Amino acid sequence: MRIEDLNWMDVEAYLKQEDRLMLVLGACEQHGYLSLLTDMKIPQALADAASTQTGVLVAPAVNFGVSPYFLTYPGTISLRVSTLVDLVEDLVRSVYGYGFRRLLIMNGHGGNNPARARLVEVANQLPGLQLAWYAWWESHTVEALAQKYQLKPTHASWMEAFAFTRVSELPPGEKPAPSFTGLLNADETRLAYGDGVFGGTYQADEAVMQEMFQACLEDVLYLLRFERPALQPE
Amino acid sequence: MRIEDLNWMDVEAYLKQEDRLMLVLGACEQHGYLSLLTDMKIPQALADAASTQTGVLVAPAVNFGVSPYFLTYPGTISLRVSTLVDLVEDLVRSVYGYGFRRLLIMNGHGGNNPARARLVEVANQLPGLQLAWYAWWESHTVEALAQKYQLKPTHASWMEAFAFTRVSELPPGEKPAPSFTGLLNADETRLAYGDGVFGGTYQADEAVMQEMFQACLEDVLYLLRFERPALQPE
Amino acid sequence: MRIEDLNWMDVEAYLKQEDRLMLVLGACEQHGYLSLLTDMKIPQALADAASTQTGVLVAPAVNFGVSPYFLTYPGTISLRVSTLVDLVEDLVRSVYGYGFRRLLIMNGHGGNNPARARLVEVANQLPGLQLAWYAWWESHTVEALAQKYQLKPTHASWMEAFAFTRVSELPPGEKPAPSFTGLLNADETRLAYGDGVFGGTYQADEAVMQEMFQACLEDVLYLLRFERPALQPE
Amino acid sequence: MRIEDLNWMDVEAYLKQEDRLMLVLGACEQHGYLSLLTDMKIPQALADAASTQTGVLVAPAVNFGVSPYFLTYPGTISLRVSTLVDLVEDLVRSVYGYGFRRLLIMNGHGGNNPARARLVEVANQLPGLQLAWYAWWESHTVEALAQKYQLKPTHASWMEAFAFTRVSELPPGEKPAPSFTGLLNADETRLAYGDGVFGGTYQADEAVMQEMFQACLEDVLYLLRFERPALQPE
Amino acid sequence: MRIEDLNWMDVEAYLKQEDRLMLVLGACEQHGYLSLLTDMKIPQALADAASTQTGVLVAPAVNFGVSPYFLTYPGTISLRVSTLVDLVEDLVRSVYGYGFRRLLIMNGHGGNNPARARLVEVANQLPGLQLAWYAWWESHTVEALAQKYQLKPTHASWMEAFAFTRVSELPPGEKPAPSFTGLLNADETRLAYGDGVFGGTYQADEAVMQEMFQACLEDVLYLLRFERPALQPE
Amino acid sequence: MRIEDLNWMDVEAYLKQEDRLMLVLGACEQHGYLSLLTDMKIPQALADAASTQTGVLVAPAVNFGVSPYFLTYPGTISLRVSTLVDLVEDLVRSVYGYGFRRLLIMNGHGGNNPARARLVEVANQLPGLQLAWYAWWESHTVEALAQKYQLKPTHASWMEAFAFTRVSELPPGEKPAPSFTGLLNADETRLAYGDGVFGGTYQADEAVMQEMFQACLEDVLYLLRFERPALQPE
Repeated sequence: MRIEDLNWMDVEAYLKQEDRLMLVLGACEQHGYLSLLTDMKIPQALADAASTQTGVLVAPAVNFGVSPYFLTYPGTISLRVSTLVDLVEDLVRSVYGYGFRRLLIMNGHGGNNPARARLVEVANQLPGLQLAWYAWWESHTVEALAQKYQLKPTHASWMEAFAFTRVSELPPGEKPAPSFTGLLNADETRLAYGDGVFGGTYQADEAVMQEMFQACLEDVLYLLRFERPALQPE
Repeated sequence: MRIEDLNWMDVEAYLKQEDRLMLVLGACEQHGYLSLLTDMKIPQALADAASTQTGVLVAPAVNFGVSPYFLTYPGTISLRVSTLVDLVEDLVRSVYGYGFRRLLIMNGHGGNNPARARLVEVANQLPGLQLAWYAWWESHTVEALAQKYQLKPTHASWMEAFAFTRVSELPPGEKPAPSFTGLLNADETRLAYGDGVFGGTYQADEAVMQEMFQACLEDVLYLLRFERPALQPE
Repeated sequence: MRIEDLNWMDVEAYLKQEDRLMLVLGACEQHGYLSLLTDMKIPQALADAASTQTGVLVAPAVNFGVSPYFLTYPGTISLRVSTLVDLVEDLVRSVYGYGFRRLLIMNGHGGNNPARARLVEVANQLPGLQLAWYAWWESHTVEALAQKYQLKPTHASWMEAFAFTRVSELPPGEKPAPSFTGLLNADETRLAYGDGVFGGTYQADEAVMQEMFQACLEDVLYLLRFERPALQPE
Repeated sequence: MRIEDLNWMDVEAYLKQEDRLMLVLGACEQHGYLSLLTDMKIPQALADAASTQTGVLVAPAVNFGVSPYFLTYPGTISLRVSTLVDLVEDLVRSVYGYGFRRLLIMNGHGGNNPARARLVEVANQLPGLQLAWYAWWESHTVEALAQKYQLKPTHASWMEAFAFTRVSELPPGEKPAPSFTGLLNADETRLAYGDGVFGGTYQADEAVMQEMFQACLEDVLYLLRFERPALQPE
Repeated sequence: MRIEDLNWMDVEAYLKQEDRLMLVLGACEQHGYLSLLTDMKIPQALADAASTQTGVLVAPAVNFGVSPYFLTYPGTISLRVSTLVDLVEDLVRSVYGYGFRRLLIMNGHGGNNPARARLVEVANQLPGLQLAWYAWWESHTVEALAQKYQLKPTHASWMEAFAFTRVSELPPGEKPAPSFTGLLNADETRLAYGDGVFGGTYQADEAVMQEMFQACLEDVLYLLRFERPALQPE
Repeated sequence: MRIEDLNWMDVEAYLKQEDRLMLVLGACEQHGYLSLLTDMKIPQALADAASTQTGVLVAPAVNFGVSPYFLTYPGTISLRVSTLVDLVEDLVRSVYGYGFRRLLIMNGHGGNNPARARLVEVANQLPGLQLAWYAWWESHTVEALAQKYQLKPTHASWMEAFAFTRVSELPPGEKPAPSFTGLLNADETRLAYGDGVFGGTYQADEAVMQEMFQACLEDVLYLLRFERPALQPE
């Protein structure tokens, strides 16, 4: 259930029973052969699936993230880090204002991590707000699965090549992972990464992808329980 | 054709032939009985239709706008005006960087008008950039059609009640338009507008809606020609 | 009665009887043959006249507005939109701090409209604050008068050519209104508008000007009553 | 000659002969028994007088400054320091854009000193820009005169009590200067300063005031020559 | 060699031979039983050691980082994320201005990671600038060593307990690592972490600490070579 | 006693007895033949000495200040004025949060004065906060001593040439003070000041320096008493 399919009266009714919400943070940036919106599509798909099972509402996605290193790849649209953190603050304050109290941020893009700092700054000011953050690709879940199948999880490789993020044929085989020290600017990044894939196998079996999706979904369902016994003052 | 359906190589290829792009600015705010994303859905639909006819690419939508007056209506998510203008600047600078030169901003929400000022500030710095702005509901086209059918165009009324923005039954009949002087805060706005509709008929014939959509589409197609003979130095 | 003619003790005494204030937002920008401060002078004159009749105090004018499109016309001084909204917030918070509660913003320049968004954001935080906004040239009053005399109201034309905004001879006759689609940058604007007038008759009869001024003054006097019965919770 | 008395064509003509401009920075803050706009009125008067003798143009005044310590004195309107520096940057960039190169900032308020830092930051980016800054009350000129007449120059005392800043009777005699260590907030400031005068004689002879005005005017005329032989690379 | 031990002429002389510089980013935040400046002291010590071997200059440390989650632990001083990124930008632009071209950022605190985004944004604008980033505790080096000695590397545990960061006795033994989902605010963090250590052994053998320091120093020396063959266009 | 030598538990214990703190604001900027960190070293030394006598804690120094005019002197690192004021606000809010109430800002650099405005803005929002500010070189104490020894106190001259700020030989004799009107940008400043000293004697007797240090220390000890009887409401 997405906010876009509701009107405000529906949300008001929802808030009488429930105070949880999922917020999707994406990015519009090069993903090699995959969709430029890959980083939005994956957490959105997970949020939709979790919503189907739990009825927790999903807010409209933030379609852009912080991707300054990819600005030489056409189609990449990067927010300054200052813009992103302001944006995320606005989302949280808006929904807190009329009663949402438990927010699960479904992040799809590593460049958005600075939003975590602003989220804590805001949480220090809003009593009763509980925040959770899910970055699927950094989860133990994905790490374990990658190990199980001996696949290396990297940007724009098999790991992000879901049926719903593919927009063209993927190359067969594997790409050697370039290795760089340094903090690359956009020109250097393109020089270093060529097609934009950070190395490893370009695609995995559909069964692996589905297993991974299901496993991540379990993570999301767990986080949506917002269990924090250790944080209760005795 | 939307950026989300492409990878970066597709956009690079596109830019060899073309330098136009449509950017959709929406809002996530109460629209009475209609979808909270109405202000994104309408310009998005127009942009998609125009893209079908012209092949001009459509960037991912900005799903949020400036709606501080509606923050007492659950589901409304408002960006501060400072956030919106920064966001719009980032979009424009990103796409200008790799070669887009003619941008049509498809705005769906009056609260986003402050972005126009920042756009001009940015345009003063980026040689060769041409900007157009379309706010369908303020167009002469819609004004003429409203007059023709004796319908009053207001927020969340018939005018925005397209098949694709409806998420519930609409009330029959007409709502008297409340009339207020003053700049209302969010509490006052809810007191003043109740169900959130700014008055007038709740719905119009589907034929009228389609006629309006087509007429607006003509506007968009015209703007996409970026004809500006008067601006050529002789 | 202007703040500049008082000391702080006078204002303190005033606040024991009264909580209304008029704030003038102007601009310093090209107005064709008229004064570069036309957009300040007109709302200032209206505010002074309204003050004479009601005793409501007038704050010092903001002499600058958002005019990035006119920066190629010498004498134009433009605030970034971010600066203007911060400035307006500061004015409102300052006067709210020691007791003003009903503020009428007398705006003289369309480019200042983004301040409305910030004003609502601030009003959401300041209990008891009531805001009104008057943009004389967009009023029904001026529309009706323009229709009555078959004059087209445009930037820097007859409509702004009061005795007190004239600084040179005005051309006779009429200027064809250039028509542009697009969001013009400062270079394009000068190319498009030449002398800076947006078309129509350059000047109207003094009697028409006085009639318009009086009619606008009535608007201001009405707004100063801050009547908002519909906003009272029953 | 003030910009408000000109249209843009006049300024364009002026710029063909001249690249100097005076910018007046004021404040709207308590000045004891004197006008709340005292800090604007004094540099404005000096600028006007200097303009009469030299023909150098005067931009519209900034009527507000940074006065957070006086916010408990009604009528004080304080810009945040961040707003002021942005504002001053906007003024300078605007006028630099169409050709002003030598700017004399006529400051009337000590709280505006942070603008100096931003001015240098901006000057580091704008080739050919020359800036001068005049704070009349901190000048050697005023120091010498105060010494000559054995008057102590302090905020809102005789020193600012010109005929054109008086809005009420001034008390006779002298006020003992309160002496405080610390950085006072607005509540503490009012507690400390009572009527708002920082001590010393409330008024001086009109002849002294005129002598001081003339002497300051000489300073302004000197600064307007923008003599900087030592800065010429050999 | 630190900038604090030089005057500007020394730096000017240095720049004739060399364009490398180390910038230390620290934090002032709770580290359990260790110094509140632990996150500055460690990268500073590494930088000093690397400087001794290479002669590369070290800039004064940034003593504060982004630590909003620890603001309930007295002594923690947290910069807003927006402040930190501005600060880091200022450092980089300052030193780039007079000729530094290869900068190694020695970061001591995970909360400072958002600076990476701003660094790339800035690097996109400054031709010839090369940036490297070293976060010692996240290095493969430390990971390998922790594995070798079966120690778990966590905040304020043995890993940061160098002789030079200790300011009190350390507890013996081990702390069970609390495990939390969620993004904790400052109150929750204190509830969750008690003494502030994130779990694991409180201290390791001095020999282990020295081995780790040496290994990290090798990393720094490697990074200071700024080898980036793969980034050379062929 | 510096925060860097404590852990958070120490600070918590301290706060049970005491609510005073010293905050050191420095600068990293050219000081002629002296250390680039002179402006940090002097107030740091005073703070350390005062701490020894009173036990009042000293926070880690801010090593950078606002020095745009010196950016052509290598080694100078300048914060934008906006960055500095944000930074200072963050420091104050952090320590206020867990109980510090009386803060003595030990400023070492005139360019940091804009922080005073932000400090007052913040103090207007934080009940019970008391702020003091010490700029040693502007004190009556230093003025008196300079007069006594007939030395002219200027930037980077004898006045700042303590044993602990010297990093090289100082020239003998005296430098004629260049005299400039205007607000110099970084290029002009270097042209004007050459070696960076603002004129006067390069060095004074060690005995004079120690006398001055002791006298300033007395000032600090006095300020640490935070005596403000006149501010008590009767």
